[in-house]
Amino acid sequence: MGFDAHRFSPRQDRPLWLACLEWDGEGPGLDGDSDGDVAAHALVDAVLSAADLGDIGSLFGVGRDSRGAGMHGGDMLREVCGLISARGFRLGKASVVLVASRPHLDSRREEARKAMSLAVGGPVSLTATTTDGMGFTGRGEGVAAIASALLVTT
Amino acid sequence: MGFDAHRFSPRQDRPLWLACLEWDGEGPGLDGDSDGDVAAHALVDAVLSAADLGDIGSLFGVGRDSRGAGMHGGDMLREVCGLISARGFRLGKASVVLVASRPHLDSRREEARKAMSLAVGGPVSLTATTTDGMGFTGRGEGVAAIASALLVTT
Amino acid sequence: MGFDAHRFSPRQDRPLWLACLEWDGEGPGLDGDSDGDVAAHALVDAVLSAADLGDIGSLFGVGRDSRGAGMHGGDMLREVCGLISARGFRLGKASVVLVASRPHLDSRREEARKAMSLAVGGPVSLTATTTDGMGFTGRGEGVAAIASALLVTT
Repeated sequence: MGFDAHRFSPRQDRPLWLACLEWDGEGPGLDGDSDGDVAAHALVDAVLSAADLGDIGSLFGVGRDSRGAGMHGGDMLREVCGLISARGFRLGKASVVLVASRPHLDSRREEARKAMSLAVGGPVSLTATTTDGMGFTGRGEGVAAIASALLVTT
Repeated sequence: MGFDAHRFSPRQDRPLWLACLEWDGEGPGLDGDSDGDVAAHALVDAVLSAADLGDIGSLFGVGRDSRGAGMHGGDMLREVCGLISARGFRLGKASVVLVASRPHLDSRREEARKAMSLAVGGPVSLTATTTDGMGFTGRGEGVAAIASALLVTT
Repeated sequence: MGFDAHRFSPRQDRPLWLACLEWDGEGPGLDGDSDGDVAAHALVDAVLSAADLGDIGSLFGVGRDSRGAGMHGGDMLREVCGLISARGFRLGKASVVLVASRPHLDSRREEARKAMSLAVGGPVSLTATTTDGMGFTGRGEGVAAIASALLVTT
């Protein structure tokens, strides 16, 4: 399992990165020292947890001077794919849930699915839901993502 | 994985549907264009995600004029069961967590377990928890559900 | 799947129990009739759900006069381990996500991993994340935990 949540940036020009895609014209992006891609981050944690290799904070660090600062979620997933591969695992299946009032996943689900699957080296499915106006995702303060990953031995 | 959240209706006469059961006398139900059954909806998403068939929004649509409008969660689960069956899968095991201040699952857990399992064509377990008065479920604004599903090939 | 959330206690001398460890010097602990260990509780629910044995409320009761009152999460996990063992299961793998602004898991992840794994009788991985100041965990009102468990037959 993995979970992550990031706040939308107050900076209007912050690009929105989500599920390994840049979402042009969908308003300000998610804040963070990295690209703020909660879908990729939740999946990083799910895969690391399945392989018992710590979490995104212990691997990439936390804060502006960390190794993960400025890093894209896709690059994190590629690195994690290499780490588990070196230990004899590959991703059997992953499922990522976006909890967000924006952007709407539907129009780019297939594109996002391919980008995430390619980065992590195994099949990733994506679903999206809202919280009916409730909580921080409902108020549009930010986006959360829940991920699960099942590894198989190579 | 699947997740869903719905708000309690301001309409006192709105029936409460949850986990494929109607909860008489448990106060106003959950709002939504469908029956608002977050447990069924989260499970629909978990099963669709496991089979990589999109999500509840892409399958049943969103809004008052969608195919899912007025539809019961149990009927959605039956349709999803047919979809995965046609692709050579069946549900090996599913687990659904209700995050709710009401109703209390305990008195009807077995009944709900049977109704959901029958609808989706495989074993579903149900747990329930509260958030200790915190967040939108704690304040009684609505109910959330988290679901996981493991499919097997037939 | 399992989920739990508890509120930080207003009592400054309440000990903080989390992931089967006592966190000295990390400020007031989590409230609850038991020790408030949301990580252990979420895992209890995940394991009970996988074995279809109800949930923490149905097994240990709810409230000050319940069997679970004053009980440590580790003791609950040991009891649950015995229950599933008697039914021919053992934990194949579990993953627990802490959603918390404090304490910081990193310094004691290995210790927590060992304590939880020993209690439940199988491998448990731990990750931790924050919600970027959003929601009840972001405001520091309390801590939430999400857990998944995969059982194997013995």
